[in-house]
Amino acid sequence: MLFKNIDVLREDGLAEKGAYVGVEGDRITYIGSEAPARDFGEVYAGAGRLLMPAFYNAHAHSPMTLLRGYGENLKLQDWLTTRIFPFEDKLTGEAVYRGTMLAIAESLRFGIVSTTDMYYFCEDMLRAFLESGAKVNIGRGITCFTDEDLADLAGFRETRYLFETYNEAAGGRVKVETSLHAEYTSTPKIAAQLAAYANEVGAGMHVHVSETKAEHEECRTRHDGKTPVAYLASLGFFETRTTAAHCVHVTEEDMDILAQKGVTVASCPISNMKLSSGVCNVPRLLEKGVNVAIGTDGAASNNNLNFIEEMKFFALSNKLMRGDPTLVSPAETIAAATVGGAKSQGRPDCGAIRVGAKADLIVLDLSVANMQPVHALVNNIVYAAAGGDVRLTMSDGKVLYRDGAYTTIDIEKTLFEAAGATERILGALKPA
Amino acid sequence: MLFKNIDVLREDGLAEKGAYVGVEGDRITYIGSEAPARDFGEVYAGAGRLLMPAFYNAHAHSPMTLLRGYGENLKLQDWLTTRIFPFEDKLTGEAVYRGTMLAIAESLRFGIVSTTDMYYFCEDMLRAFLESGAKVNIGRGITCFTDEDLADLAGFRETRYLFETYNEAAGGRVKVETSLHAEYTSTPKIAAQLAAYANEVGAGMHVHVSETKAEHEECRTRHDGKTPVAYLASLGFFETRTTAAHCVHVTEEDMDILAQKGVTVASCPISNMKLSSGVCNVPRLLEKGVNVAIGTDGAASNNNLNFIEEMKFFALSNKLMRGDPTLVSPAETIAAATVGGAKSQGRPDCGAIRVGAKADLIVLDLSVANMQPVHALVNNIVYAAAGGDVRLTMSDGKVLYRDGAYTTIDIEKTLFEAAGATERILGALKPA
Repeated sequence: MLFKNIDVLREDGLAEKGAYVGVEGDRITYIGSEAPARDFGEVYAGAGRLLMPAFYNAHAHSPMTLLRGYGENLKLQDWLTTRIFPFEDKLTGEAVYRGTMLAIAESLRFGIVSTTDMYYFCEDMLRAFLESGAKVNIGRGITCFTDEDLADLAGFRETRYLFETYNEAAGGRVKVETSLHAEYTSTPKIAAQLAAYANEVGAGMHVHVSETKAEHEECRTRHDGKTPVAYLASLGFFETRTTAAHCVHVTEEDMDILAQKGVTVASCPISNMKLSSGVCNVPRLLEKGVNVAIGTDGAASNNNLNFIEEMKFFALSNKLMRGDPTLVSPAETIAAATVGGAKSQGRPDCGAIRVGAKADLIVLDLSVANMQPVHALVNNIVYAAAGGDVRLTMSDGKVLYRDGAYTTIDIEKTLFEAAGATERILGALKPA
Repeated sequence: MLFKNIDVLREDGLAEKGAYVGVEGDRITYIGSEAPARDFGEVYAGAGRLLMPAFYNAHAHSPMTLLRGYGENLKLQDWLTTRIFPFEDKLTGEAVYRGTMLAIAESLRFGIVSTTDMYYFCEDMLRAFLESGAKVNIGRGITCFTDEDLADLAGFRETRYLFETYNEAAGGRVKVETSLHAEYTSTPKIAAQLAAYANEVGAGMHVHVSETKAEHEECRTRHDGKTPVAYLASLGFFETRTTAAHCVHVTEEDMDILAQKGVTVASCPISNMKLSSGVCNVPRLLEKGVNVAIGTDGAASNNNLNFIEEMKFFALSNKLMRGDPTLVSPAETIAAATVGGAKSQGRPDCGAIRVGAKADLIVLDLSVANMQPVHALVNNIVYAAAGGDVRLTMSDGKVLYRDGAYTTIDIEKTLFEAAGATERILGALKPA
């Protein structure tokens, strides 16, 4: 495909006006102000539109779309015990597949091409990702409250099976990772054994860290004053590519460890606000050189996967909490949503528009009232765009979404069957 | 028009599934689960869609769309003095008209039918509102830093002219109000004289109150310890229908005065976060019985007029700042955006779907991935919807926006001319 006469968001945040961008196979192979000499197939008329890198969702639980709006206005503990856990207890592989497909459809609508996901029934999730053409870094979330060995856990057997079967499948679209759910939902033995496994096979790691103040403080009480970051580091974590989700309550020393180990912090600003957890200190992490990415978390605590909206919350929540409107610029925000997320997923050839990079691209409509005038594109992208302004989403050179329609997903069926799966679970939850 | 087989958001927050809503003239005249016997003209096929009340933007500066993204990542004082004030100094009536038309187009796209507006060149603004069919409560913002009398101020002469010429024009679509910009930009004499005028002629009042901590504290220093609310009350304010914008730093005693006087607080959560001003204490105001509405503020500090997004910030910012996820429910949020805003504008027959009410209605698409499944409609509206999900906006029974198209606005011309007006101002700002 050749994008013709389109504004292009360059890596420096400025726009190349009326440029040409050519895609061949899964790569960007031409960028120029003149039409290329050779034929790129379909021509996309780009006047009044912006071409920019697609988004990488660095922390999600895709199947939780089925729980969107199910439990609201509850304290965290009530929410989990009276709504989330009972519902999840009735989940089936089929429901997980339906929920994941719904999440992918929603993600593509909002410009997300790749998701770092932690849940269970992972093979059912993978089926949806493989069918849809979207990318995933998938991990079976591991929890353990007893004295078992890692090898005894069904979750670990699933992890190993997935890693051996699917890692780097579909041309690298699928990456299988290890996922410790969190410090507070596992034992030191399990955590250490999982880290050892990840280090041995070279798998990525995905873990919840210091999401709430209670979690952070209780870890210190349980583990000789060690914070979750220090505790996990002491057990061999952070030696492979790691995504630490939330990090709302990390200390200065924690941040130094995260920086030194090259860990990505996946900040989930909407979920953290909605559950009153706090605001991840993004400016301080950036100052220390930590790679920061953005995650939606699950739809149960968001309640959507609207990355345009997530970027605005990311920037504004930090301005509010640090009392300084100069913090977290639009350029920093876009970097976290694109190249920062791609880096967290071990996709170094993604997240920027340059020749040779993977063609993970979105088109934003500039011909809508909220996107005019344009004093500076990055400001309009982060502060003024709406989720529905995404007109096209391309992953690895393939158009997966365009003007409300999907090329790989039957959207009517997806909506209908996600609703049906939800109703069956609600039916199973009803007292006899 | 007859909306057929559509889900309807009732006043109790529940949905009437597959209902019929008939509109005749500017009113809703039929609501039922059966098709009405008589003919309502055009039939709107409502399957997979939701009909709900339109939004009332309780605090805005419409022409500031021209400054969208112009000054970013600056401290408030730098932002005002190096960007906003110099730009505004070059504004013309024509530019204000263009910016207002752009704001109306954007508002309609996001479901807003009526705006409480404070700016200048108000007759040019009014021209855009009258042409577009949208509603406005308009006030010429009055400032005064010298010892003049109110009658000597051009801003007051404009106010009086507007009130005498346009108040209740176009069947009540236009309401002209008095607007004191703020305590810190006026003298006690001017403030008292403006309040006296408003009380005498029965005009509404619109005023910025305690937006920043500095403003709040400096008022106490200037005026014998009186807060802005107490100071304004002592000068005769709050005796007519009044909208107090922001109210981020009001005290318990201030809230009691606002409740007792029936003042509406127009909370502007996005602007307050973006400028690091703080979060208006909505739960406490609601507890005290204050009418709370929602405003976008100007696009320079937002940077859009996306009311769907504004609702989410409204709810979540309070959950975060009060450390309690149970606060500010979706139903309370929708009430503030609809009936609370209508009340603040003196439009008692607007803001709810009932027979006899004005037909100010919007249609939301439920057949998009982010709006499914539906456990409870109000949760999806506030937490999951995207601005672009608004499919139709009707004001006083007239469809003004539908599926990206406008019935009263030439959108290409509006975008083009707003950009042109902006460029001319930027040109005038360049050093010779």
